Amino acid sequence: MGPATPVSTEFNILKAGHVELRVTDLERARSFYVDLLGFVETERTADRIYLRCLEDWEHHSLILAKAAAPGLGHIAYRVASEDDLTALHRLATARELPARWLQPGTERGQGQALRIQDPLGFPVEFYHEVERVPRLLQQFHLYRGTHVMRVDHVNLQVPDVEAGAAWYRDALGFACSEYTESEDTPPRLWAIWLHRKQNVHDVALMTGRGPRLHHVGFWLQEPSNVLRAADILAGAGYAASIERGPGRHGISNAMFLYLRDPDGNRVELYTCDYLIPDPDFEPIRWSLNDPRRQTYWGHAAPASWFDEAALVATFDGEGYVPIQEPIMADRPSHVGH
Amino acid sequence: MGPATPVSTEFNILKAGHVELRVTDLERARSFYVDLLGFVETERTADRIYLRCLEDWEHHSLILAKAAAPGLGHIAYRVASEDDLTALHRLATARELPARWLQPGTERGQGQALRIQDPLGFPVEFYHEVERVPRLLQQFHLYRGTHVMRVDHVNLQVPDVEAGAAWYRDALGFACSEYTESEDTPPRLWAIWLHRKQNVHDVALMTGRGPRLHHVGFWLQEPSNVLRAADILAGAGYAASIERGPGRHGISNAMFLYLRDPDGNRVELYTCDYLIPDPDFEPIRWSLNDPRRQTYWGHAAPASWFDEAALVATFDGEGYVPIQEPIMADRPSHVGH
Amino acid sequence: MGPATPVSTEFNILKAGHVELRVTDLERARSFYVDLLGFVETERTADRIYLRCLEDWEHHSLILAKAAAPGLGHIAYRVASEDDLTALHRLATARELPARWLQPGTERGQGQALRIQDPLGFPVEFYHEVERVPRLLQQFHLYRGTHVMRVDHVNLQVPDVEAGAAWYRDALGFACSEYTESEDTPPRLWAIWLHRKQNVHDVALMTGRGPRLHHVGFWLQEPSNVLRAADILAGAGYAASIERGPGRHGISNAMFLYLRDPDGNRVELYTCDYLIPDPDFEPIRWSLNDPRRQTYWGHAAPASWFDEAALVATFDGEGYVPIQEPIMADRPSHVGH
Amino acid sequence: MGPATPVSTEFNILKAGHVELRVTDLERARSFYVDLLGFVETERTADRIYLRCLEDWEHHSLILAKAAAPGLGHIAYRVASEDDLTALHRLATARELPARWLQPGTERGQGQALRIQDPLGFPVEFYHEVERVPRLLQQFHLYRGTHVMRVDHVNLQVPDVEAGAAWYRDALGFACSEYTESEDTPPRLWAIWLHRKQNVHDVALMTGRGPRLHHVGFWLQEPSNVLRAADILAGAGYAASIERGPGRHGISNAMFLYLRDPDGNRVELYTCDYLIPDPDFEPIRWSLNDPRRQTYWGHAAPASWFDEAALVATFDGEGYVPIQEPIMADRPSHVGH
Repeated sequence: MGPATPVSTEFNILKAGHVELRVTDLERARSFYVDLLGFVETERTADRIYLRCLEDWEHHSLILAKAAAPGLGHIAYRVASEDDLTALHRLATARELPARWLQPGTERGQGQALRIQDPLGFPVEFYHEVERVPRLLQQFHLYRGTHVMRVDHVNLQVPDVEAGAAWYRDALGFACSEYTESEDTPPRLWAIWLHRKQNVHDVALMTGRGPRLHHVGFWLQEPSNVLRAADILAGAGYAASIERGPGRHGISNAMFLYLRDPDGNRVELYTCDYLIPDPDFEPIRWSLNDPRRQTYWGHAAPASWFDEAALVATFDGEGYVPIQEPIMADRPSHVGH
Repeated sequence: MGPATPVSTEFNILKAGHVELRVTDLERARSFYVDLLGFVETERTADRIYLRCLEDWEHHSLILAKAAAPGLGHIAYRVASEDDLTALHRLATARELPARWLQPGTERGQGQALRIQDPLGFPVEFYHEVERVPRLLQQFHLYRGTHVMRVDHVNLQVPDVEAGAAWYRDALGFACSEYTESEDTPPRLWAIWLHRKQNVHDVALMTGRGPRLHHVGFWLQEPSNVLRAADILAGAGYAASIERGPGRHGISNAMFLYLRDPDGNRVELYTCDYLIPDPDFEPIRWSLNDPRRQTYWGHAAPASWFDEAALVATFDGEGYVPIQEPIMADRPSHVGH
Repeated sequence: MGPATPVSTEFNILKAGHVELRVTDLERARSFYVDLLGFVETERTADRIYLRCLEDWEHHSLILAKAAAPGLGHIAYRVASEDDLTALHRLATARELPARWLQPGTERGQGQALRIQDPLGFPVEFYHEVERVPRLLQQFHLYRGTHVMRVDHVNLQVPDVEAGAAWYRDALGFACSEYTESEDTPPRLWAIWLHRKQNVHDVALMTGRGPRLHHVGFWLQEPSNVLRAADILAGAGYAASIERGPGRHGISNAMFLYLRDPDGNRVELYTCDYLIPDPDFEPIRWSLNDPRRQTYWGHAAPASWFDEAALVATFDGEGYVPIQEPIMADRPSHVGH
Repeated sequence: MGPATPVSTEFNILKAGHVELRVTDLERARSFYVDLLGFVETERTADRIYLRCLEDWEHHSLILAKAAAPGLGHIAYRVASEDDLTALHRLATARELPARWLQPGTERGQGQALRIQDPLGFPVEFYHEVERVPRLLQQFHLYRGTHVMRVDHVNLQVPDVEAGAAWYRDALGFACSEYTESEDTPPRLWAIWLHRKQNVHDVALMTGRGPRLHHVGFWLQEPSNVLRAADILAGAGYAASIERGPGRHGISNAMFLYLRDPDGNRVELYTCDYLIPDPDFEPIRWSLNDPRRQTYWGHAAPASWFDEAALVATFDGEGYVPIQEPIMADRPSHVGH
């Protein structure tokens, strides 16, 4: 791994902006995300609930979409201008990727957007224009649940991380903060954390059956909120929704808790990673079988954490992208099947 | 100051049990205590709201009573048995203190109780039998506001602390944990922290115009809840209700925040004092003018904190006990008038 | 289970006072307890290091004793007076328990003490007189490591909990706060939490191979210190010393972390349980197989947590008390062997 | 105020990188910054101590320089490349600002750097090349004091904020996150928070006698560290070093504590502001006399906080830049002189 790749100058992707999760029961999902976790409802339609976090000034950072089966509707990245959308459309065309324009309002609170199926197989949206809504950051009396501040990142399970990283780094201009290599000779890239905004990641890619959305991560303000999240879920009878943690990641240094929503979609609550204002930040290398990599305190992740992930919608939204087997082992040697 | 006085064996006072505060507008008070601070409503009648905290299994630890003017309705201490009430009645009679029995249910959720006007001039209730209600300690999803755990103590402003301390120590069997002396020669007792349960205090006496209730203190689980309390109040437009703090007391070591409810009654949110399982704990002496005494970090309390306090109801409940001037200075030399 | 047993009036046990752990390498143990966990060294001799916590005013609350093998040297309870020692000696004699007097200074910083072998097989010391040393509670700049405040409790693994509980409740006057029953018909007592000071326990008894010391628990001031403990250990290369947690107990409500010292002795870091000022507190019943009992968030304890515990010294100190098998299953059905 | 100014493409300033503070007694200053606050010493020379924070991989983020009088030695901003230095040198020449090149190693651990006297009168250094040192972020066992993570910002007191803002925004490409206006008609810019990295600020300008360094801000990981800082200072006898706070800023939303080092230089400990990944973030307007602006909880800052600040070294380093009076009132109407 060399230093972080210089940023493309053709377009400027700002950050992971929102995620659309498919759920089979909107009310049940709303209870989980709003009543327990403390997301704020901005707007709802017959088949969608648009949620935001306490630091957000955008209309939404999470969409719950009614569907026959759970899974990922789409991932969205915000870009710096409308011109960036045009440049990204050129890129998609040049790469012969499925692409279409969404008219303003197709997604509530959002202007014109570009939807593509990326080379990894994921439905990805790029947008710039978005409706500004009141930010609740200092409305402390309205904080509920786990005090979710903002969307932080998505984690994608893919059969070939090196191929996926090429797209994100070389075509989209993401920089690497940390990465995991196998213990092969020579080592092979097993997972990578990539960012556009100035913290550890907007997107991570990990080796596994895919394409699947492993999880979407939301940022909390401090570790005590992570503990509070576990307490709230257990108190409300949702202890079975706690899949892993609370713990401290070796990678990213973050305090974390992994949850499964009532449809099985995985959410990470995440805090205390670090700032990366320098493009020449030297990426941190981890070995796949270093037990401190996943949980610095040495706890092994459960097998379900490797086995299970969300299918991703096809470009037409009518089905799910077929799964392929990974090109190398999908977990450390100390985690069972 | 010698070591803590041995406990009387005639009766066994367990703890400060609850306080009745008079408020002029029940709904406004309920908003403050329930919606902002997070107290739980157990029951309400036409003129009273009975509140409890998250660790409580008793029916109530705070009563809001509708009245024409704010002030203290009564303080209540719980005793270990009904026989203790009889013994306390004997004591009141021997001391020629006003005393009467309250029949079960006179106060909702409470059995027979003894009400006296104590030698300091305060309306004090002793009770044993109380209705048990569901404890919400592990219903973490129901926690609201500042996560108030239990009533901790009352602080009483009296003209003559030595006289008041004699009643509490010698007649009622309270032990001293910490005390403040003037810089006179010889030093005079300026304030005293007295306890029956095993932490720093159930009651504190401080020199000042009195008898007045200076504040009632409620226990939070950790310092982050103290910060959260200040945030919630400021967010809701109640910044003016924050009178002092957040800070760290020298005395008691507690993290604190002093609030004024919409009627001006003073409440302390309090955490991180220490445990005193040993009756021979050596009381800690402080000098009145030591700036670390009140706030260990050196901040001076505002003059209002010394000037203002709640009048206390007369024994018939019809009026307020007249105020007398203190027998010595009512504040440190570094605090103005 | 009925309500808490009334306290004996013949003697007054105040609290769990200290524990002597045997370690094979004093320097290595000192690194663990002082450099990492933040205990304070009061005094050391050729074969013992006397440690205390930040809230302590007693000479020591933990003794590390050099020995050929790890294990429990003794448990010590503090009593309210010298007369209580005499009364306890009478009790030991009446029960024909091995008992002897330790002369003042036999244990550094301690006056005359009574050592017995209790009916459960444990070496137990009772003491009153102890050297007072400077309390570091407000010397915040001297806090190190995990900010250990005080010893909280011991947890004892015994073959027959009901028999052990009879001794502690009926002979020594401990009260029950919480207990665990098997799912037999009728249910059988599987574990019990017993206290003299006013929180959840000074001693817990749990069913298992014994007599063995399962762990000694130390009190931290807030949950962030529990997380910090895990970070410190992992940072220093001691991740393997973290056996279980951080987590939230159902029983006791405490946040916890279980550690194994370099000799394998088990230590619990513990905070956020609750206060019990009322002798009629109604003991809380748990079912052995309720997954929230051990960790409210649903995590199962590792098998090692049930399998492994410290042998206890014989009365002459020359050997270890032989182990007996438990009279019923030693773990919940969801924990493997 | 319009939206944030687009970033200059001629050079790329990354962040506030370090600050050199002048102190009259190096050992006394080291005790304050290293022993109490927990900075890490990277290197020292006869007249300088180079310190870094726990998240730093750069050689230093704070320099203590021995001098006859306290004050600011220089502020340093890191740029993305050596070419940026050349472009900045062109800018300085075009503006006829004093400028000189510092050879590699002139400042320990640093490559070639550009030093200028900026139009506001401050000695400012730009650098790119810097020695990489071990980052201690996950060496949790080495954390001391208040767990200082990184330098966050400088706050500069200047007579004419609008003029200063023009330099930072228009010439250097900083973006505005928040600002304060007077209550004049039309309102005048009283203070401004400007950033290059993606949080609230790298530099703030406030109206007052100047040019003076008001304070340098360091980032902590969570609010409990702010409380711990106050405790540590008070415990060590440095309560008088606590000038203001702990509190919550309205502007920036940060939890803060302002300290004065033994020479009177002011340091802010700072945490819990927010992320700004979007260049079109809409700057937040505050009114000078809004009491929640400075401390959201309503506390007024002390007069010293407006009156006192550090003189700044002249370009030749031999003296201090003369002070000029501000062009408007230097404090809110509710703060006295």
